[in-house]
Amino acid sequence: MRIGELSRRTGVSVPTIKFYVREGLLPAGELTSPNQASYGEAHVQRLRLIRALLDVGGLSVAGIRDVIVAVDDPERPVHTVLGVAANGMVPRYDREPDTGIEEARKKVAELIAARGWHAYPENPAGEALATALAALDDVGHGGFAEVLDAYADAAERVAGADLEYVAHHVAREELVESVVVGTVLGDAIFAAMRRLAQVDASNRIFGRAT
Amino acid sequence: MRIGELSRRTGVSVPTIKFYVREGLLPAGELTSPNQASYGEAHVQRLRLIRALLDVGGLSVAGIRDVIVAVDDPERPVHTVLGVAANGMVPRYDREPDTGIEEARKKVAELIAARGWHAYPENPAGEALATALAALDDVGHGGFAEVLDAYADAAERVAGADLEYVAHHVAREELVESVVVGTVLGDAIFAAMRRLAQVDASNRIFGRAT
Repeated sequence: MRIGELSRRTGVSVPTIKFYVREGLLPAGELTSPNQASYGEAHVQRLRLIRALLDVGGLSVAGIRDVIVAVDDPERPVHTVLGVAANGMVPRYDREPDTGIEEARKKVAELIAARGWHAYPENPAGEALATALAALDDVGHGGFAEVLDAYADAAERVAGADLEYVAHHVAREELVESVVVGTVLGDAIFAAMRRLAQVDASNRIFGRAT
Repeated sequence: MRIGELSRRTGVSVPTIKFYVREGLLPAGELTSPNQASYGEAHVQRLRLIRALLDVGGLSVAGIRDVIVAVDDPERPVHTVLGVAANGMVPRYDREPDTGIEEARKKVAELIAARGWHAYPENPAGEALATALAALDDVGHGGFAEVLDAYADAAERVAGADLEYVAHHVAREELVESVVVGTVLGDAIFAAMRRLAQVDASNRIFGRAT
């Protein structure tokens, strides 16, 4: 199909499609004449993936490029591609907390050991966790750490469901894409559900008293 | 203390502190002379809260203002303040999915009914959930919806722990602030833990095969 139809089918404007091609997010179309290119279903699918990662996942263009480069590289073993994809989706913070990051890193290492997780504390997710824990301390809510075990239980439940879903997608490109989509959209889904469950819990605890 | 010391203690620059005062995020200092103001511990605490919401929570200045206005209003009943605070923290999306939003809304209403949650599907969290589910469909991963029950179990576990923590903070200002901090930093904490648990699960499932 021509670029105009690709634009109509995906709701992405022609200049934006050209921008994604220049930025390496979308493969160029096949040239059918010196100034005309043809696009296929793979382009439609890829554009939908990009929009989901941008709009719902909140990833940056650079973050999406890292993920897509990993998805497209046929040489990488599946497990390391999953790692790159997951790391590309760890939120980055503008600023380190003032204090307590070393102590928070120790807590993260202890948690990982206590859970028996095969994960290194130094990976981006471990660092992100340490940053958030140190930020809790900064705002005087270090006591919130007492709920970490409940969070870890829930994280295991969700990660187990994620990987179970992934196990039903055997093709390699689909597999990695599933993890990417599941993680980014899964964060949005979980955050929304947690709000709904909080409203319910708050209603039960505080609703009558006021 | 003077504004220079407030800046030193919190790591926030003087122009940024003045910006927060102008934007209504931070109360003005007490004027001690026509061109000098004095700040107290409440300002230190509030600045740390603002930075945590901005840097770790990723909220916008406008989003933080909504939350702080709700926290500071002594007239509102606790349960409705918690609602405003929670709604202020639901991520907004740039764009509605092309299709399927009505169907996704129906799924959300069914989920809430099946769970027996006292929450309206029309609230911002319900809308956010519907948007994410429709986006999943858009990218061809509608099948991911089969894991929603596992997500809901985990969300109940986390929300229960959140409210349990909150129940230990009886002062009203602390109470609402705890929910705000717990929700925003809690999202960051949960997302990081989920990545760690995924690395572990991926290692067990795919690590040996490659």
